Amino acid sequence: MEKVSVFGAGSWGTAIAFVLSDNGHNCMLWTRKPDQCREINEQHTNEMYLPKIELPTNLHAVTDVREAVTHSDVLIIAVPTKGIREICGQLNRLINEPKLIVHVSKGIEPDSLKRISEMIEDEIDPEKRKAIVALSGPSHAEEVVLRHPTTITAASLDAEAAIKVQDLFMNNYFRVYTHDDLIGVEIGGALKNVIALAAGISDGLSYGDNAKAALITRGLAEITRLGMKMGANPLTFSGLTGLGDLIVTCTSIHSRNYKAGNLLGQGKTLDEVISGMGMVIEGIRTTKAAHQLAVRHGVSMPLTEALYTVLFEGETPKQAVDQLMGRTKKQEIEDIFYK
Amino acid sequence: MEKVSVFGAGSWGTAIAFVLSDNGHNCMLWTRKPDQCREINEQHTNEMYLPKIELPTNLHAVTDVREAVTHSDVLIIAVPTKGIREICGQLNRLINEPKLIVHVSKGIEPDSLKRISEMIEDEIDPEKRKAIVALSGPSHAEEVVLRHPTTITAASLDAEAAIKVQDLFMNNYFRVYTHDDLIGVEIGGALKNVIALAAGISDGLSYGDNAKAALITRGLAEITRLGMKMGANPLTFSGLTGLGDLIVTCTSIHSRNYKAGNLLGQGKTLDEVISGMGMVIEGIRTTKAAHQLAVRHGVSMPLTEALYTVLFEGETPKQAVDQLMGRTKKQEIEDIFYK
Repeated sequence: MEKVSVFGAGSWGTAIAFVLSDNGHNCMLWTRKPDQCREINEQHTNEMYLPKIELPTNLHAVTDVREAVTHSDVLIIAVPTKGIREICGQLNRLINEPKLIVHVSKGIEPDSLKRISEMIEDEIDPEKRKAIVALSGPSHAEEVVLRHPTTITAASLDAEAAIKVQDLFMNNYFRVYTHDDLIGVEIGGALKNVIALAAGISDGLSYGDNAKAALITRGLAEITRLGMKMGANPLTFSGLTGLGDLIVTCTSIHSRNYKAGNLLGQGKTLDEVISGMGMVIEGIRTTKAAHQLAVRHGVSMPLTEALYTVLFEGETPKQAVDQLMGRTKKQEIEDIFYK
Repeated sequence: MEKVSVFGAGSWGTAIAFVLSDNGHNCMLWTRKPDQCREINEQHTNEMYLPKIELPTNLHAVTDVREAVTHSDVLIIAVPTKGIREICGQLNRLINEPKLIVHVSKGIEPDSLKRISEMIEDEIDPEKRKAIVALSGPSHAEEVVLRHPTTITAASLDAEAAIKVQDLFMNNYFRVYTHDDLIGVEIGGALKNVIALAAGISDGLSYGDNAKAALITRGLAEITRLGMKMGANPLTFSGLTGLGDLIVTCTSIHSRNYKAGNLLGQGKTLDEVISGMGMVIEGIRTTKAAHQLAVRHGVSMPLTEALYTVLFEGETPKQAVDQLMGRTKKQEIEDIFYK
């Protein structure tokens, strides 16, 4: 039995805490909202994010960051990308002895172009952390809390830390694999949201499953091209955190990024989509970051570029997708992998 | 304007003929059924296979194999795998001058373990064929005949022949890429149906999108492992005919193999599923062939093996999937790629 704290009580943070509590660990879930904290402790629900789910009674929520930091040796960060620096800054001021830091977020910071683990390194001093582990894979929270079979990857430069996280989470419905390619796992997790927006747009335009499969295939190829330039192992992108997560995000009704793209494809404006969703759509910020990464590394990313023109330059979704589909005739491998 | 004959008027053969006719080619569609032939010529429909679709009026159907062979320089074979040898034997007896042979079928012959192009080589004498081209990719017939955007690959050992096929089919909704890895394209097209059965079973058991994404990811990895042993380029499996076709087959409502798996997952017997579908389910025969290929080449294919025990050895779907998901903890890349 271990003491673990999860920071962020959105759907995924809550699901993570659910699995840890299910495994008998002493899990503390931090939220900044007093009402939500009370609901979790007294009614054992989190209706806003996981409707109709009964949470384990041994899961305890708190609103005091200090209490959550002091309680545990393992700190799990489960906030959207744009909240990472703020929560890590708070943790850094409160940590007294080195902790194992785990994150479950998927994004790249625009402008700095840093991965989540790099943002954590910026904000939490080296002597206050044992190691950083990214937990990522095809894992919709809504299915995890139904205890449906899920596989996921724990990636770290520190092999022992990855195994420690594997041991914490592993059970008969939640299978954890370890991985040493932290760069590849973080890039794959972040950039799949860009492709999910594009896939959603294609479906919103009623272009069908053939078109969507083409977009997903070409999307994974451009993520792989970028990842290789950034030092990732190309095989990582064929695994759970690349292909696996991409499939789930582009085809599942639970995916917010796919849903947002779908609404764009149906003709809604970006502002209407953002205000209508009520949850963070990571793919929008990530598209900006991916566009910047493509420029910095000189990598051809036609799908990312097309989406960038839709989100930030006023191109219509139909123009963008038609341009992607209507390119000149080519050899397939040349086109996908070597451009 | 070219003269082209398509042999087989199922949904895919008819869709192929539809595209060729749309492109202004003089296309002849052979079927063995007089009623169907008359319906195509007089009503310009093929209701049994493509309900509610109006076929181009320049598409002409025939029941005489000789007429279809004599008419054209390009012969396209669009029959299920188990009908390949018979139709090719007929073509061989009727061909007078060398023809370009194209096939659009997806399967492996059990026992002989031959790919479609190898079966064609067996049955059509070398002096009667210019080259063999496989046309394959994520392309549900139902969407092609709605002129929804579709991408596909023309693969051949003869680069000029692949370009010829690309030129025949290419238009603004049907994008054709050429490819030189005939082995990889044929293996990917055949084996995706095995994974589609497994994905259908998982959904039939209501295991959810996380589980299905894991199965697809691991399925593609085992197809890639086998393909490499058979001489294919591993990159091919990340392309349209590998990943792309796998996604469409495992997630689209149009996929027969997925549907069959789904019924198995819901508890139907194999006999009930086969008799209820009314169309050929290629994945069942292919699972047998894939099992035999795994043994011959000494490749670990846990998903194929699990499905084989369900289809041919009486294992229940739930036992098989649970066994796949519940394996011991491992490193991801080791598990997926190097076992």
